[in-house]
Amino acid sequence: MDNLFDGIPAEIPAEILEVLLEAKNFRLERIVSRGQATPPGEWYDQDSHEWVVLLAGGAGLRFEGESDPKELHPGDFLLIPAHCRHRVEWTDPAQPTVWLALHYQP
Amino acid sequence: MDNLFDGIPAEIPAEILEVLLEAKNFRLERIVSRGQATPPGEWYDQDSHEWVVLLAGGAGLRFEGESDPKELHPGDFLLIPAHCRHRVEWTDPAQPTVWLALHYQP
Repeated sequence: MDNLFDGIPAEIPAEILEVLLEAKNFRLERIVSRGQATPPGEWYDQDSHEWVVLLAGGAGLRFEGESDPKELHPGDFLLIPAHCRHRVEWTDPAQPTVWLALHYQP
Repeated sequence: MDNLFDGIPAEIPAEILEVLLEAKNFRLERIVSRGQATPPGEWYDQDSHEWVVLLAGGAGLRFEGESDPKELHPGDFLLIPAHCRHRVEWTDPAQPTVWLALHYQP
């Protein structure tokens, strides 16, 4: 049986993105980061909706037009609507941050 | 922000099923149980595929034709194909067991 917290290397020089499941209309990914953030000045602007849950570690997620990032702890989830510009301001440098992201078409 | 581990009552007399997200072709649920199991002799036989991950607690999941249940720990995930008969033999009676289940059409 597979486990979401297995196969995480000690060193994570870049965000690790793995597709767990893909079907008509959606794609489920595991994302692992450790200290990574969206490069300064860059924003994600996606054609699909993204439902995301943080399962380990911690992160700061900022939406355009909001001054402060939302701080995510394990279990926190939210929906990022298509074309809602956002960025990851920070992820915990001291431990892996594990996310599940479900991308789907509007 | 919502959290998968919030809103869990101290007493769980019956499995709690909550739809988190529903879109064309899939439905995402949070399931919380505490000691519940599939009634003796009963099997789930579903028209849709189910990708499931256990996030807290523990459970025994048995597939028809297999003598022993698979023991699931936090982070364990697997795909239950449509019409693959299965049952939950047990869930941890000492703490809530929290699952995410993603049902989708073949």
